[in-house]
Amino acid sequence: MKTAILGASGYAGGELVRFIDDHDEFHLVHLGAHTQSGMPLGSVHPHLAGGSRVLGSNDPNALPEVDLVFLALPHGASAEIGKALADDGSRVVDLGADYRLDSDDRYRAAYGQPHPHPEDLGEWVYGLPELFDCTDTGRIASPGCYPTTTILGLAPLVVAGLIDPGTIVVNAVSGVSGAGRKLAEQFLFGSIDEGVVAYGVGVHRHRPEMEMALELLSGTRASVTFTPHLVPMQRGIVATSTATLVDPSTSRAVLLDALRSAYEGRPFVEVIDVPPQSRWTVNSNRALLSTFVDIPTGRVVVTAALDNLVKGAAGQAVQAANLMLDLPEDTGLPSHGWMP
Amino acid sequence: MKTAILGASGYAGGELVRFIDDHDEFHLVHLGAHTQSGMPLGSVHPHLAGGSRVLGSNDPNALPEVDLVFLALPHGASAEIGKALADDGSRVVDLGADYRLDSDDRYRAAYGQPHPHPEDLGEWVYGLPELFDCTDTGRIASPGCYPTTTILGLAPLVVAGLIDPGTIVVNAVSGVSGAGRKLAEQFLFGSIDEGVVAYGVGVHRHRPEMEMALELLSGTRASVTFTPHLVPMQRGIVATSTATLVDPSTSRAVLLDALRSAYEGRPFVEVIDVPPQSRWTVNSNRALLSTFVDIPTGRVVVTAALDNLVKGAAGQAVQAANLMLDLPEDTGLPSHGWMP
Amino acid sequence: MKTAILGASGYAGGELVRFIDDHDEFHLVHLGAHTQSGMPLGSVHPHLAGGSRVLGSNDPNALPEVDLVFLALPHGASAEIGKALADDGSRVVDLGADYRLDSDDRYRAAYGQPHPHPEDLGEWVYGLPELFDCTDTGRIASPGCYPTTTILGLAPLVVAGLIDPGTIVVNAVSGVSGAGRKLAEQFLFGSIDEGVVAYGVGVHRHRPEMEMALELLSGTRASVTFTPHLVPMQRGIVATSTATLVDPSTSRAVLLDALRSAYEGRPFVEVIDVPPQSRWTVNSNRALLSTFVDIPTGRVVVTAALDNLVKGAAGQAVQAANLMLDLPEDTGLPSHGWMP
Amino acid sequence: MKTAILGASGYAGGELVRFIDDHDEFHLVHLGAHTQSGMPLGSVHPHLAGGSRVLGSNDPNALPEVDLVFLALPHGASAEIGKALADDGSRVVDLGADYRLDSDDRYRAAYGQPHPHPEDLGEWVYGLPELFDCTDTGRIASPGCYPTTTILGLAPLVVAGLIDPGTIVVNAVSGVSGAGRKLAEQFLFGSIDEGVVAYGVGVHRHRPEMEMALELLSGTRASVTFTPHLVPMQRGIVATSTATLVDPSTSRAVLLDALRSAYEGRPFVEVIDVPPQSRWTVNSNRALLSTFVDIPTGRVVVTAALDNLVKGAAGQAVQAANLMLDLPEDTGLPSHGWMP
Repeated sequence: MKTAILGASGYAGGELVRFIDDHDEFHLVHLGAHTQSGMPLGSVHPHLAGGSRVLGSNDPNALPEVDLVFLALPHGASAEIGKALADDGSRVVDLGADYRLDSDDRYRAAYGQPHPHPEDLGEWVYGLPELFDCTDTGRIASPGCYPTTTILGLAPLVVAGLIDPGTIVVNAVSGVSGAGRKLAEQFLFGSIDEGVVAYGVGVHRHRPEMEMALELLSGTRASVTFTPHLVPMQRGIVATSTATLVDPSTSRAVLLDALRSAYEGRPFVEVIDVPPQSRWTVNSNRALLSTFVDIPTGRVVVTAALDNLVKGAAGQAVQAANLMLDLPEDTGLPSHGWMP
Repeated sequence: MKTAILGASGYAGGELVRFIDDHDEFHLVHLGAHTQSGMPLGSVHPHLAGGSRVLGSNDPNALPEVDLVFLALPHGASAEIGKALADDGSRVVDLGADYRLDSDDRYRAAYGQPHPHPEDLGEWVYGLPELFDCTDTGRIASPGCYPTTTILGLAPLVVAGLIDPGTIVVNAVSGVSGAGRKLAEQFLFGSIDEGVVAYGVGVHRHRPEMEMALELLSGTRASVTFTPHLVPMQRGIVATSTATLVDPSTSRAVLLDALRSAYEGRPFVEVIDVPPQSRWTVNSNRALLSTFVDIPTGRVVVTAALDNLVKGAAGQAVQAANLMLDLPEDTGLPSHGWMP
Repeated sequence: MKTAILGASGYAGGELVRFIDDHDEFHLVHLGAHTQSGMPLGSVHPHLAGGSRVLGSNDPNALPEVDLVFLALPHGASAEIGKALADDGSRVVDLGADYRLDSDDRYRAAYGQPHPHPEDLGEWVYGLPELFDCTDTGRIASPGCYPTTTILGLAPLVVAGLIDPGTIVVNAVSGVSGAGRKLAEQFLFGSIDEGVVAYGVGVHRHRPEMEMALELLSGTRASVTFTPHLVPMQRGIVATSTATLVDPSTSRAVLLDALRSAYEGRPFVEVIDVPPQSRWTVNSNRALLSTFVDIPTGRVVVTAALDNLVKGAAGQAVQAANLMLDLPEDTGLPSHGWMP
Repeated sequence: MKTAILGASGYAGGELVRFIDDHDEFHLVHLGAHTQSGMPLGSVHPHLAGGSRVLGSNDPNALPEVDLVFLALPHGASAEIGKALADDGSRVVDLGADYRLDSDDRYRAAYGQPHPHPEDLGEWVYGLPELFDCTDTGRIASPGCYPTTTILGLAPLVVAGLIDPGTIVVNAVSGVSGAGRKLAEQFLFGSIDEGVVAYGVGVHRHRPEMEMALELLSGTRASVTFTPHLVPMQRGIVATSTATLVDPSTSRAVLLDALRSAYEGRPFVEVIDVPPQSRWTVNSNRALLSTFVDIPTGRVVVTAALDNLVKGAAGQAVQAANLMLDLPEDTGLPSHGWMP
């Protein structure tokens, strides 16, 4: 498969290069960038053994013939580019948010303006492969990192009717790479190191994505309060979700079983007995889940971890592309993390 | 005031030495330790310009005559020592949990066993000086770091009847020093750095302390789900609390006002407009609070930050001792943090 | 003493505010800034309990009447401002490099251009108080962080004739705050965290400062190779210097004695038996030194540590100002560091 | 090739599992451990997708039939085990120091005692594949992390007669994983984070290894002062070496050429124009080198970086094993690092 990446200069773009270089079926023929077009890959991503590759353009018209395109573009940029490429017959996996939501109403609520191609919103598959079927489509909207972490942990419990989807409170912590490769005072080492801060309180755009996925999967309305936090590490997310049990006497074993049976046979989601350390997932496409009953309050706590740039972005995009192309979903993806 | 510290070899003990060495009214005459008794202060705390001081014993009978004693001992150790010293007429500030709870019932629920001196539980003042009167007592039980952070943010809203105390979900992140100076695989740099993990899910002992304080202050029953997380930094806590608004149309301004008026004139608690970065408080006795309305769900989010070893431990203990002795509450305490 | 800081918005400027706010004799009457003039202190330095102070101008003509001025300005900016203020009768402590070197020749070698006021170069005292007399001057050029760390460790050995000053190799590591508060890709958390890099190899401007100080103190020519490295921490420097022993049979005890006797009675320099951890100095004005003989090669290794923003910048500037004004040199300065 | 790892529970052991699991030719049939024998792999290395594998014994007599054994044992443990396995016909790659030195004299100088099998010392190949031939042996002693970093940078310059091998000063910084997985106060997060310290000054055991390799390669005597430092990161080494140029007018281009021609065609060593960031190598088997002339002193500075657990340990061991077995040297090894 001749493969292109548009937006190869960012963090997720760099991870896509790394995974696809090691992929047996996908062959990189084009790396696009915007301001860094024309730069050697090795100077933009000095951790990649770049050889002599040079970044080209993000312009879809400047692409060589390709079968598969990954888009890792700033918000809004893939609405046109993704549509053009997909309408033209390329298979497209978009890591951006432009086609994740399923209706213009939800899009307006999240982004405060209408979608440029609202009629296309239903055409894209929400690319969370353990919960949505990615095999029969050419258009995949790859989920955000926080929604992936959260939905993997909550969806089986909502679907099984074990928790009340109107009572969900999600708090998450993320490594700094989740914010992308941005030059801003708030992302300096001197600002980040040795401190933690909440952000986007009450207004983070990943909340509607969480509610949509839970509603699509369960057919019931979900109501999520979502508060993300930035912590001093490069990668990794832990999302801790609390919700009221429908039956307060539900045992922990029942909850663990619901999670385990939902992901049986899937290589990348593992349910464990202890709260997962995000480090155990870094550099792999693994998601780790656990759940506990908070007995005095009759609530459940689900805690989930993954690498925001792998299972939360580039790895999951490759996983979805594998399925779209009838390959084993773990082709070319790391299943081991690394420590220390 | 001739002052002693028992448990001077731990992290909180080291901070007590630092603050009291700079205090105009308290004069350190004894530093007690257990296994490190006999060691020079400078080898136990190489960051302190130790001079020739040597750690002595934690045995209260081995103390020189003192007016004021700070206890920074392992859980359970101050039940006897603190009682003996206080019964003997010393003013005692206990940084441990032994006398924090107000009844044997609550103590049994938290610790799974009866308190050795249940009749004394009501005799100790819960030493959160902005909310509990510390001026007229010789026995102060200094609060835990998580409860301090959480209660400062929630109590004024519960007391004002703005939020439903039965719906509280608290998620907190803490630097590693909160776990104390313990030699365990899980606290190695190789285990902690670049990862986040939840712990004590559903069973952390600080939950009853939070519920007790809110109930004592508001006279209504509180129900808290509390999930703490360890993050790769030395110091600092951010506690993010979510609760349902009694009146979903309550504005953010009303909530901010409730917080501001609760702490008017107090030097160490500041209400700000943005979510507080824990770094802004490190090395100071400051607590920073902010609050937001999550409009779609009718919930409130309170996010609070402080340095777990200062306002969350040693600094707050000195603050309470100042008040106990009719000194200005900020005597000897740093009001500036430091960055970067 | 009415005191002003010009350049109060940077990292060293923030530390000056912190120390001078706690100083019994210096009273801050003006905080100057360039692009952030007009901003509240608390928004520029959110870790400082700012009250209502607002940053003013860096223009020396806009200053209120002051007795003492600290300059923490970008390189080149204090050549004119510092001269104007000092000629006008203010006591000036310049944290910049403009007046550190003692001759136009040395300045041209370091900076590639002539000094605008070469005739003034000899008028300023190099403000390393343990080695240069700061009591009888109104103009102090405060040393760089790397030279302070290095010279404190090497000078006594060079002066005593124990090591060959023509064979000095200095390698140093520094926390990121040493580079100042700069918005650049290379200082992002994503670039710094979990990596180390050498920089300025062969061309760093602190080398001539080291050679000058050693030559002024010993009267012999010094030749230094200096390679600094950036490490993922906020603060702290360790400088490790290697030089050939004049007499290869010199014992370690002789070297330690030479260091100890050089700093006897000085509150901020301590000679210890083990290699100093930079953390033991952070937030204090302490410098820690140790030295070892590398027996197989007949070389000496000196390893020194301090906090680059305190003893390496703001703290040392206050120390020098204290001496200039016949105050005890430790007035208003922290002698304890903090951990963890 | 049926492959075993003895010492699979440590950091290097974990990396060996990760690489060999992805290796097309090596098939893991046994994972040995000492105190953790009997434990599931996934509880000892929770970052590895362990499946149901369980750690077995380190006893060579308990091994199933194997063709290739990697030893990642504590110092001293492989002297007997390695000899027994190799004498028995297994191909052995020892990551320990037991057979690295080439003579009992050097071993006694380094370790203060005679080698138990001095006659075997010459039988093992020093497994630095870019400089020593690993193709024609069954016994490989894999180099230490600091020697690998240093020798790669210095050897070509010594061999070409460009620098004086009697004047070498090496300063290195390493991430904490270099010290292994040890439970000690000095490796706690609270001790390591935000600080730097030199250690083993004048006595580190990697110095004789550096001198040996340079002498074997150049036929001239080398004299190295080596000072390592611990920095707050998990992985990565930067070694910065200084030496006097034989001809002080040697240009930088000549030095870069000498390095480039030495490693031409080798996949894992790259000579670059700027000082290498250790982060650019993490998680890959790459070593990055650069060199500079310190013109005023007539000295050369070489700065080199690699991942101490990959090119400095497990990756290099697999690389040497590949060559020993006539496979391409990069089989199964990551050439891309990862960031951020």
